[in-house]
Amino acid sequence: MSETPTGNATRGAQAPVAQEDAGGVLTLARDLIRCPSVTPDDGCAIDVLAAVLRQMGFAVTPLVFGEGGARTPNLFARLGTGHPHVCFAGHTDVVPVGDAAWRSDPFGAQIHDGLLYGRGACDMKGGIAAFVAAVRCYLARHGGRVPGSISLLITGDEEGPATNGTVRVLEWMEAQGQVPDFCLVGEPTNPQQMGEVIKIGRRGSLNATITVKGVQGHVAYPHRADNPVHRLLALLQELTAVPLDTGSEWFEPSSLQVTSIDVGNSATNVIPATACARLNIRFNDLHTGADLSGWIRTVCARHAPGADVQIRISGESFLTQPTAGVDALRDAVAKVTGHAPRLDTGGGTSDARFISRYCPVAEFGLVGASMHKADEHVPVADLTQLTRIYDMFLERLMA
Amino acid sequence: MSETPTGNATRGAQAPVAQEDAGGVLTLARDLIRCPSVTPDDGCAIDVLAAVLRQMGFAVTPLVFGEGGARTPNLFARLGTGHPHVCFAGHTDVVPVGDAAWRSDPFGAQIHDGLLYGRGACDMKGGIAAFVAAVRCYLARHGGRVPGSISLLITGDEEGPATNGTVRVLEWMEAQGQVPDFCLVGEPTNPQQMGEVIKIGRRGSLNATITVKGVQGHVAYPHRADNPVHRLLALLQELTAVPLDTGSEWFEPSSLQVTSIDVGNSATNVIPATACARLNIRFNDLHTGADLSGWIRTVCARHAPGADVQIRISGESFLTQPTAGVDALRDAVAKVTGHAPRLDTGGGTSDARFISRYCPVAEFGLVGASMHKADEHVPVADLTQLTRIYDMFLERLMA
Ligand SMILES: [Zn+2]
Ligand SMILES: [Zn+2]
Repeated sequence: MSETPTGNATRGAQAPVAQEDAGGVLTLARDLIRCPSVTPDDGCAIDVLAAVLRQMGFAVTPLVFGEGGARTPNLFARLGTGHPHVCFAGHTDVVPVGDAAWRSDPFGAQIHDGLLYGRGACDMKGGIAAFVAAVRCYLARHGGRVPGSISLLITGDEEGPATNGTVRVLEWMEAQGQVPDFCLVGEPTNPQQMGEVIKIGRRGSLNATITVKGVQGHVAYPHRADNPVHRLLALLQELTAVPLDTGSEWFEPSSLQVTSIDVGNSATNVIPATACARLNIRFNDLHTGADLSGWIRTVCARHAPGADVQIRISGESFLTQPTAGVDALRDAVAKVTGHAPRLDTGGGTSDARFISRYCPVAEFGLVGASMHKADEHVPVADLTQLTRIYDMFLERLMA
Repeated sequence: MSETPTGNATRGAQAPVAQEDAGGVLTLARDLIRCPSVTPDDGCAIDVLAAVLRQMGFAVTPLVFGEGGARTPNLFARLGTGHPHVCFAGHTDVVPVGDAAWRSDPFGAQIHDGLLYGRGACDMKGGIAAFVAAVRCYLARHGGRVPGSISLLITGDEEGPATNGTVRVLEWMEAQGQVPDFCLVGEPTNPQQMGEVIKIGRRGSLNATITVKGVQGHVAYPHRADNPVHRLLALLQELTAVPLDTGSEWFEPSSLQVTSIDVGNSATNVIPATACARLNIRFNDLHTGADLSGWIRTVCARHAPGADVQIRISGESFLTQPTAGVDALRDAVAKVTGHAPRLDTGGGTSDARFISRYCPVAEFGLVGASMHKADEHVPVADLTQLTRIYDMFLERLMA
């Protein structure tokens, strides 16, 4: 339908941002969406961003890690050298277009009825564009200077295996003495509308595969056999009988889900020889992966001595206690949107789990309702609003 | 090694049976083993038996039921028309030779060190031969006459599907007014040595398949999904938490065995849509198939409304309360073996479950340790002993 005209905004130092393309957010978002950077292919998105940042005066360091198919382009860019050092983290890669039909080209960045369509619109090229635009607005008000420093940690591999992305850049940053004082991750955090949720932590995740070996036999003579299914039932019963916790100050209750049980015995009169179960735990800050692993192994040993227990911890839980950075973000969100955002730790995992090992981290971005789906989109008004939020956040932290 | 000489025994009316081939038991056992009657192929075994019985004065009725591949030869033979009418039930078919090597021809009926080798030696051509030999001994002592009547119900399909065997012969017998007063089944009932066990009942058997449907989802958002594995665990927990009973006067405790659980979900972050379990119950006379089915359905409905529950009852439990027939058998076993036999209802199922619908039935035969295995065998001395037991049983019942 109608297409909103785009163009850089210019405005006075203290004037509120009102234009639809505040700080050039829409132009940059569209430029980034037009790079088909489906993970693990970068499709020029990082280069486009690097060029923009260089023009703004950032010192840009391209960081390519991994080799062959695992070769991952990343970028670290910093403006200024002082403190507070505020870092914005994000990714330019996007998930595949998917099988469902789109109403327009997923890489066309078209606007219909005030909505910008495209893969990555909300997750998270729109978020990156809003931060860059916010820095422009901040600099415009402050004569092109920043009292501390502002950096961007951008990876081209968040949606993929994430081995040569944020983790490696953080190692490099630490080695270079460039660990920030606070990190803002621009992932879409709002379920339905802007201003709902700031994420200040994430749950940890653990996967276990439990294989119980018994003694095969005939159902008519159960005392001569040892039914591994019954041992598995007993240990799963103990693992699921009592909730892991009732939640903590900032976290929902931890959750254990048995995702599969497999025996594969089709003979109705035979007690099988082995039985296998898989489970996942999403755990809060009342647990560690090690504690939960020990607990699982103890329960298994009690009901099925000798059971094979394979455990993989894909991430520990983390929490950023409300700090100056979180307070600044919260205030900015409330002022711009008129809503008091919920400080939340729910949902899946993000690269924030890696960043939390180095510095306080919080996440706030666009509305994620359409992410990873066909017709991913973001209201142009939300892009403007997010730019104003990030701008006000910088203003508060740098003050 | 040495081969025991065979030949018909001749002896005085009241003299104890001492010869190794009392009543011709060894000769008939060997003749029957030499017929390769692997189920469902009859291999002349029933014809050999029919000829012997006719010679002894039995009225022999061949009864062939079923057509084509299901065509099953059976036989009913009766000597005398009065009461008490004592029937011996057995089968001439045998299970296949199997994959393991035999030390001698499975259908050679060779004797080594006092042991008669061959498929069916103990299950149950040896038992049939012992009963026929016992009748010969009885008739020899009683001038060739029996006060009541003696019959044999022989099927060529006990080890197979058993649809056109004992069930059909019993229907025919009832239609002909030939239902016995007591039936003795000659299956091998002794685990290790002669005189250990008389079976006076069998447990029932029920199979259930339970399929629970849930709502698929992501493990990070369990409240948006409905995990069918957890519902299945809860209902299986209730079904297995408490023993079904502690046994009854004549039965061991009933036993419920979960034989398989299958989900087939390999995605560690996905809560699956369905989960399926299979279970078998071997139940005693404190339960019926209908009661147990109702209980299973109630428990399933409580934990997983709408679950699909498929139940098949393959046999109800039955018990022959100790009667004149059981007493006569028990006395005969004790006198001949010197052991007081245990009245038992354990183990698998046999054709006795069909006979029990018509008349009291008990089971006593040879030692079953080698049945269905390679090198199936029976001590020649056991054949003689079983002949003496059956003979004394007839003497007591007919007195
Ligand atoms: Zn993302
Ligand atoms: Zn048998």
